[in-house]
Amino acid sequence: VTWIPVPEGSPFPATNLPYGVLAGGVPVVAIGDQVLDLCGLASAGLIDGDFSGTTLDAFLAAGPATWAAVRAALVDLVTDESHRAAVEPHLQPRAGTSNVLPFTVADYVDFYSSIDHAKNLGAMFRPGQPALTPNWKHLPIGYHGRAGTVVVSGTDVRRPVGQRAPAEGGRPPVGPSVRLDIEAEVGFVVGVPAPSGRVPASALADHVLGMVLVNDWSARDIQAWEYVPLGPFLGKSFATSVSPWIVPLEALRGARIDPVVQDPEPVDYLHDGDPWQLDVTLEVSINGHLVSRPPFGTMYWTPGQQLAHLTVNGASLRTGDLFASGTISGPSRDQRGSFIELSWNGTEPLTLPDGSVRTFLEDGDTVSITAWATLRDGSRLGFGEVVGTIVAAEI
Amino acid sequence: VTWIPVPEGSPFPATNLPYGVLAGGVPVVAIGDQVLDLCGLASAGLIDGDFSGTTLDAFLAAGPATWAAVRAALVDLVTDESHRAAVEPHLQPRAGTSNVLPFTVADYVDFYSSIDHAKNLGAMFRPGQPALTPNWKHLPIGYHGRAGTVVVSGTDVRRPVGQRAPAEGGRPPVGPSVRLDIEAEVGFVVGVPAPSGRVPASALADHVLGMVLVNDWSARDIQAWEYVPLGPFLGKSFATSVSPWIVPLEALRGARIDPVVQDPEPVDYLHDGDPWQLDVTLEVSINGHLVSRPPFGTMYWTPGQQLAHLTVNGASLRTGDLFASGTISGPSRDQRGSFIELSWNGTEPLTLPDGSVRTFLEDGDTVSITAWATLRDGSRLGFGEVVGTIVAAEI
Repeated sequence: VTWIPVPEGSPFPATNLPYGVLAGGVPVVAIGDQVLDLCGLASAGLIDGDFSGTTLDAFLAAGPATWAAVRAALVDLVTDESHRAAVEPHLQPRAGTSNVLPFTVADYVDFYSSIDHAKNLGAMFRPGQPALTPNWKHLPIGYHGRAGTVVVSGTDVRRPVGQRAPAEGGRPPVGPSVRLDIEAEVGFVVGVPAPSGRVPASALADHVLGMVLVNDWSARDIQAWEYVPLGPFLGKSFATSVSPWIVPLEALRGARIDPVVQDPEPVDYLHDGDPWQLDVTLEVSINGHLVSRPPFGTMYWTPGQQLAHLTVNGASLRTGDLFASGTISGPSRDQRGSFIELSWNGTEPLTLPDGSVRTFLEDGDTVSITAWATLRDGSRLGFGEVVGTIVAAEI
Repeated sequence: VTWIPVPEGSPFPATNLPYGVLAGGVPVVAIGDQVLDLCGLASAGLIDGDFSGTTLDAFLAAGPATWAAVRAALVDLVTDESHRAAVEPHLQPRAGTSNVLPFTVADYVDFYSSIDHAKNLGAMFRPGQPALTPNWKHLPIGYHGRAGTVVVSGTDVRRPVGQRAPAEGGRPPVGPSVRLDIEAEVGFVVGVPAPSGRVPASALADHVLGMVLVNDWSARDIQAWEYVPLGPFLGKSFATSVSPWIVPLEALRGARIDPVVQDPEPVDYLHDGDPWQLDVTLEVSINGHLVSRPPFGTMYWTPGQQLAHLTVNGASLRTGDLFASGTISGPSRDQRGSFIELSWNGTEPLTLPDGSVRTFLEDGDTVSITAWATLRDGSRLGFGEVVGTIVAAEI
């Protein structure tokens, strides 16, 4: 219980305390409808962390001992009313503020770890072949995306222009994507570097501060034409949106659940003595209409395994590395995390409650992804949202 | 002609003046066997650029007008002997110095633009299918690599560990790569950002300061198992080496040649009213033995087209973006830019002059790539070298 009023149903109860940065470069923690100025708290000697910069980069690099100490101090400040007079000067309403990217993105990696998503895409992109490629159950497939086009929630997304597959023997048409899509994901923010890589799956929390929501916007027509043999490139590189609040892994301890059973058993470096997944359910809305509830807990590969795989070859980690789960799709239609799946490659259009019909995204569409973690005590924590509106292509 | 003594055959005559950064963070220009301290020259009022940092990032961002002015001033300083007394205090021998990465790598993109290389790899990786995928002649295929593992020449390269393809139905073996390879390439260093992308092919020199040599180390066994469907990941992400000297595009004006004829004609955004390629020949040596001379001038796609493609979807460019050509292979065997090609997938081992035999790289092997541009006046400019030694895997 906190002395700060938290509205019923707020994503940001006192048990959450996610980190963000307000426009102008002000690091804050969200609680209820308010934010707490971290630099102010540190200057007043109420917390002990480096929040003097305009991002959370220094705090990210500081590592788990600092993360734990700052979080413990914040919990104390917001729960013990004796701190009220000292804390209140650093509290302000969240309304009227806006957020910027809370950290400098170093490398951005995107995985492909939902078995339902991979089966759906495989069936659509490679008909007549097995839906899962032979490697899929042996390693968490991933690729590098464009770090420079990771943008904060609220940034408009311009419809990309590019080549599509030509008719047999013809020239490829060039123009605005006609199959613009989303990918509903979560992402993990690396704080502590690993200069020689080789991070064990069990060491996730030694390196990762917390989680954000990710919308990996995808132009399916551009992607389908370009992606053999070197993978997605322009079909993804135009924009990737992330939610502004880094929800600490520490806040999500109570949401840990057993991962799905992996069969065949993965190779040794993907083993984890105490593996966990998180009970987090996303909600995807288009123009205010809820269309899907992708369940993160159904992912085949855990974030710990993703991190172990990413670094097994000795690749270094840097502060600010972001790795995303890949599109989250559950087994049922209303759990699919992309429109290419929801509309089954455009063949089964969605009719929204307002009567409008969608296969892929139209100019002016606004897509919002929110998420809730359910803790073992029955309480919930929210992630805020990652939202973006499609604006017309620049011709 | 310069008053600074330049040894016969030096890669760095006064017509080159490549930019680098010495250990400790000292921006310099190389000339002959010496280096000129740029911060010192600027402090003395002899050149007008921002070299106060420990990288070339500020100079990169400054753009073509500054690049041209600084270069003109440097040419004047080293050719007009009246500047000798003023300049000599800022001159020091290159011997005994070492270099660091001269810029902060933002995003790293690698293309696949040699038609001979693509045909060779296609034949080996996808036997029984057409060597070139249907998209190959319509767009310069590329993908994002790991910016955080771009290292400067001279850095040891640890043999990566990873999964290889299993026998039918078995578990994938995990261990040090047994097919460790090089990729001989050149790279282009972006200085001027393009926040909305859409850079025309003809505008290359408005954004790119110059060129480096690139060795995109590749673990072929890891790559072959992982790369379908999302492209190369751990098979490449452990290390990419670059040469320490950025050779200005301006110095390479005289090396411009007509690009190869493209058939079919590419789509409009890949057109360039005045297209050019560069007459640059690489030399690949292993343990001191020259094994290949890859000719950059044979690349199917030009760097201008690569930049236009990279940004056509609206993807932004940032200062420090690095895009590489892809492995450079010419049509003949002694022009191949990788050992998988030189040894034809390991089936035709190379016997080196010292009697040793190689298919892929062994621990302790040192690979050096150098390059020379031939100018229309018959003179040559060098790029220095990108060198690395393989050290044993960490088990």
